[in-house]
Amino acid sequence: MKILVIGANGTVGKAVVAELASRHQIITAGRNSGDYRVDLKDSASITALFKEIGKVDAVVSAAGNVHFAPLAEFSADNYAIGINDKLMGQVNLALAAQEALNDGGSITLTSGILSSDPIRFGSSASMVNAAIDGFVRSAAIELPRGIRINSISPTLLEESLENYGPYFQGFNTVPAAKVARAYSKSVEGAQTGQVYAVN
Amino acid sequence: MKILVIGANGTVGKAVVAELASRHQIITAGRNSGDYRVDLKDSASITALFKEIGKVDAVVSAAGNVHFAPLAEFSADNYAIGINDKLMGQVNLALAAQEALNDGGSITLTSGILSSDPIRFGSSASMVNAAIDGFVRSAAIELPRGIRINSISPTLLEESLENYGPYFQGFNTVPAAKVARAYSKSVEGAQTGQVYAVN
Ligand SMILES: NC(=O)c1ccc[n+]([C@@H]2O[C@H](COP(=O)([O-])OP(=O)(O)OC[C@H]3O[C@@H](n4cnc5c(N)ncnc54)[C@H](OP(=O)(O)O)[C@@H]3O)[C@@H](O)[C@H]2O)c1
Ligand SMILES: NC(=O)c1ccc[n+]([C@@H]2O[C@H](COP(=O)([O-])OP(=O)(O)OC[C@H]3O[C@@H](n4cnc5c(N)ncnc54)[C@H](OP(=O)(O)O)[C@@H]3O)[C@@H](O)[C@H]2O)c1
Repeated sequence: MKILVIGANGTVGKAVVAELASRHQIITAGRNSGDYRVDLKDSASITALFKEIGKVDAVVSAAGNVHFAPLAEFSADNYAIGINDKLMGQVNLALAAQEALNDGGSITLTSGILSSDPIRFGSSASMVNAAIDGFVRSAAIELPRGIRINSISPTLLEESLENYGPYFQGFNTVPAAKVARAYSKSVEGAQTGQVYAVN
Repeated sequence: MKILVIGANGTVGKAVVAELASRHQIITAGRNSGDYRVDLKDSASITALFKEIGKVDAVVSAAGNVHFAPLAEFSADNYAIGINDKLMGQVNLALAAQEALNDGGSITLTSGILSSDPIRFGSSASMVNAAIDGFVRSAAIELPRGIRINSISPTLLEESLENYGPYFQGFNTVPAAKVARAYSKSVEGAQTGQVYAVN
């Protein structure tokens, strides 16, 4: 398969590429990294990317930013960061992928455990992650030509413990390689509309 | 209690008022209906509303619009309708309510069954409803002064069957009066961070 991986240079993305590269042709993209430049916040850059790379068999997003802050300090503009980047960035990617994917292709987005297991400062992440999972369940029943869509909802990665550990006291962590297997299941399996929790 | 109900003139809102009015003082608000004018899309109008009515013990939203269309026809602007109105309208209401509520007060938002049980044309509703529920679970753990927050996630109301029935073939319907009891549970009970599914 020809697989586009957005965010391939990140903690999750690197493991996804390591998992898939031995069996497939991988095209990587990011704002400042990878084979191609794309910013999920800018839907014109998504359209341009698909124009450049042509048809693919799978689109994987391991990207997306949200703002973290105490609820009492959150403004509508702070929520807009996660809505425009991690949520609508990935939704716009899925909309564009509808046309760029070969028949029977797949879309795999990334949400996260905070959808159902909240932490302090995480109200935007909880909102956005839940929204991605809701979108995935719904888009799955309308996608044409056998195109599938799933999301991966990991707990904190072992590799991210040093950066984010203090916010996630008591949470299990998982190795990136285990998270990457959920992306493989989504891309190489046959299920659709699934939220794969990895924890 | 002094209870603010946004959308009190709607199918859900009327039943909520009927359920709560015998025991509490109800203040109603809507864009074109109720005791006060407010548009959830316009956060300045939310701030102005709380300035006019002063402190309250509970804030209930039974309002919010989303766009319905086939996935293949959905644009980012179409998703923005639900994000700005039903999602961020209710989130901005909750943020403002943090300050306008008396100690131990409550916030009750409205999502809906499409978060987990999707229909054709409903990708925005699924996204937005799931996002509201995710926000509620997370905000609950950070709200100050014993303030609580829950969402009500109804299936199709019996009273709305004539308008929306064709899109919801095979779904159970519930009477508005039953849905209204979930709002009573949220306002008059002691739970927080809950999503009350009514179906
Ligand atoms: N790490 C964890 O423990 C964990 C747990 C649960 C969920 N997640 C989720 O998994 C995703 C990836 O996390 P990560 O820890 O791997 O992040 P990361 O290490 O910061 O990597 C993010 C990758 O995505 C790219 N990227 C970021 N924003 C982008 C945008 N707007 N458009 C295009 N590319 C973009 C970055 O490359 P450029 O800088 O070159 O754009 C980078 O390659 C995020 O959505 C995160 O919330 C992570
Ligand atoms: N009816 C159902 O079967 C059903 C099922 C599940 C979930 N829901 C959800 O429940 C909520 C209420 O539904 P409904 O059927 O009762 O709707 P409805 O009959 O159309 O009533 C909506 C009410 O909210 C007010 N409103 C609408 N948008 C507003 C805004 N931006 N700012 C302030 N007020 C606003 C309207 O009054 P004005 O026009 O005066 O503003 C009206 O009073 C919606 O979020 C809907 O998605 C409904």
